[in-house]
Amino acid sequence: MALIVHKYGGTSVGTPEKIKNVAARVKSVRDAGNSVVVVVSAMGHTTDELIELMHQVTTDPDPREYDMLVSTGEQVSASLLAMALQSIGCPAISLTGGQAGVVTEDIYRKARIKEIKLDRLKKELKAGKVVVITGFQGVDSKGDIITIGRGGSDTSAVAVAAALKADVCDIYTDVDGVYTADPRIVPNAKKLKYISYEEMLELASLGAQVLHPRSVECASIYNMVIHLRHSQKPDEGTYIMSASQIEKMGGSKMEKQAAVRGIALDENIAKIGLLNVPDQPGTAAKIFGALALAKINVDMIVQSIHSDGSAADMAFTVDRPDVKKALDITEQIAKALNASKVVSDADVCKVSLVGIGMVSQPGTAAKMFETLAQEKINIQMITTSEIKISCVVKKELGKKAVQVLHAAFGLEKVA
Amino acid sequence: MALIVHKYGGTSVGTPEKIKNVAARVKSVRDAGNSVVVVVSAMGHTTDELIELMHQVTTDPDPREYDMLVSTGEQVSASLLAMALQSIGCPAISLTGGQAGVVTEDIYRKARIKEIKLDRLKKELKAGKVVVITGFQGVDSKGDIITIGRGGSDTSAVAVAAALKADVCDIYTDVDGVYTADPRIVPNAKKLKYISYEEMLELASLGAQVLHPRSVECASIYNMVIHLRHSQKPDEGTYIMSASQIEKMGGSKMEKQAAVRGIALDENIAKIGLLNVPDQPGTAAKIFGALALAKINVDMIVQSIHSDGSAADMAFTVDRPDVKKALDITEQIAKALNASKVVSDADVCKVSLVGIGMVSQPGTAAKMFETLAQEKINIQMITTSEIKISCVVKKELGKKAVQVLHAAFGLEKVA
Repeated sequence: MALIVHKYGGTSVGTPEKIKNVAARVKSVRDAGNSVVVVVSAMGHTTDELIELMHQVTTDPDPREYDMLVSTGEQVSASLLAMALQSIGCPAISLTGGQAGVVTEDIYRKARIKEIKLDRLKKELKAGKVVVITGFQGVDSKGDIITIGRGGSDTSAVAVAAALKADVCDIYTDVDGVYTADPRIVPNAKKLKYISYEEMLELASLGAQVLHPRSVECASIYNMVIHLRHSQKPDEGTYIMSASQIEKMGGSKMEKQAAVRGIALDENIAKIGLLNVPDQPGTAAKIFGALALAKINVDMIVQSIHSDGSAADMAFTVDRPDVKKALDITEQIAKALNASKVVSDADVCKVSLVGIGMVSQPGTAAKMFETLAQEKINIQMITTSEIKISCVVKKELGKKAVQVLHAAFGLEKVA
Repeated sequence: MALIVHKYGGTSVGTPEKIKNVAARVKSVRDAGNSVVVVVSAMGHTTDELIELMHQVTTDPDPREYDMLVSTGEQVSASLLAMALQSIGCPAISLTGGQAGVVTEDIYRKARIKEIKLDRLKKELKAGKVVVITGFQGVDSKGDIITIGRGGSDTSAVAVAAALKADVCDIYTDVDGVYTADPRIVPNAKKLKYISYEEMLELASLGAQVLHPRSVECASIYNMVIHLRHSQKPDEGTYIMSASQIEKMGGSKMEKQAAVRGIALDENIAKIGLLNVPDQPGTAAKIFGALALAKINVDMIVQSIHSDGSAADMAFTVDRPDVKKALDITEQIAKALNASKVVSDADVCKVSLVGIGMVSQPGTAAKMFETLAQEKINIQMITTSEIKISCVVKKELGKKAVQVLHAAFGLEKVA
């Protein structure tokens, strides 16, 4: 008998009919002799509808009241799912984040979970009930309702699973699992059976938006196995676990052979360049300090020094929606620094190879550059980390780059 | 500086626009130097919509989950009202029933309020905030969300007002106040300036559905003055208070002169009669015990003994929707009792005079019967209490009866 945590997103509980489907699935898992805790998001577009209603009342909502308002969405879906379970003869109870003991920091709208007090949860599980918990929320030290940021239900599920020392955290969504690349771009992309936390984190933040990055981070801290799978299909999806767990599961051989585990494409970026920046200490700090102050997230940064050492060219990428604001700030700083020119280019994208094995196989980067060169895909920027290599290329060549790299690294054969 | 509790029903907070109107009203009261607590119902038909959604999932909802579900309606309206107040520069905070310290019995869907723990409420008031509380709900000893029965927001408001020893509990609704009769029936019906708890209780349960009877009962226990008034008009409505408070307010003279304070018409009744019931001890207990077991509310009961003492005729009234069920049960009992016949009549209504002064003015009943007789309105049943006389008459004559009685007792001159 295992203890299993399920998480269902808004699409999976979007209608009364879908809620009944989820109930049937949960019941079958319980009937097989398992204890089950279910974490749910709000139904369909409920959260957006509540926010729309709010905007008719105020354009500048107080964060505390915002949390009070939007947290009702999960309360509705949780109680309906508990009722659906009961109606098919499966004992169940719904609990708000607060009732389930989810205690957060005293920060509205984007708190982190501090701890989970398990008394009530354990009591209900011991009584043989499926416990349905509202995702995305907890309470602070004052008993106020706190949400943990959009998409946070994934994190709620992993945190509850970790606190309960559950055997696995099944995250049900509308994709089959994690693929070596987006199957819409690479038709023979392979679904991965296993992927490590580190690789998943890179992929999640690189535009393969199947899982909230914070949930992966939380899972990695507590070594909680996440099973990402489709809510309407019985097949297994992808297990997200530590490299050592993967080795135990027999996935290690392939892991060591395949340096690259996945290729991600991020088309939502723009590039900003400063030319002829006088090469003085503190230049980078001035630019990126100002951008950070404006809450603009900077991703890749490349600096090249002119051959005479007198000046440097600098380039960085930001999220596409931030490009105008970033450009304004950069131009002000450039003037102060006596840089000769600021240019921006939104016609770019980022292609990234991800894989833990890269660290021990130094040929990966060279092979990537060679493959792109053969296809006459010009590389504008490069950054590397121990488990990732990213290249910025012209936007129209992004999909092509993913396809040729997928073939070159033989990812259709990865397992 | 006074401490004032406002209560707004679902119609008054039915749209974002109306919520802003309520906010403006609350702010003006606070700006005049008062402390204000607001109790709100769910927006418009939210509760019905949630119940409709629920019926798509289950036809037999668990009461605990029902409470978890429907309580979200008030949480939405409370947070929106708090935001609307903040957006016009009025410090505000919304609290759920649980956060506001409303503790109920451990009975789902229809609990009574046990106590109100004032720590948080007092703290927020002291900080200068308007406190917006979700009506209709509290928490039980386990911390589960409990609703207190439909229409219970009136009771929430009075209970909070009583606990805080507020100066007045303003209940805002879509009528001007309490009238001597329904103005749609009696065009010159007079709005009452004051009415006693006892009179209001009789009127509330007699079909003048402006106020939840439990709220009046609660107010009478704690001597909390209720001011029933229109949410869109500045005028004063009707004060509901104890007879001694009314005397102090200068309303006593009129009170003593006018025995009758209001006339109510209840068209939602049906009459059931048992003929020739053998007159034995325990007969009434058998009939009404069986009806009580089936949760059928019996109102008027009349028994007349045949002149030879051998048998009795018995008649009683029930709510119209219950008549079929009540008839089935009565027929079974009648057979067992050897009663000769059971008859039912849904073509009836109940006209009631209400007034504390009646107890000292014995001519009221006679005058009522005489007035009806002059108009050839036949009286089928009569019951009397110290402050009420009710007559069952043919349904089509009900409105006429109210009109002639209103004129006969000079209620257009009452204040």
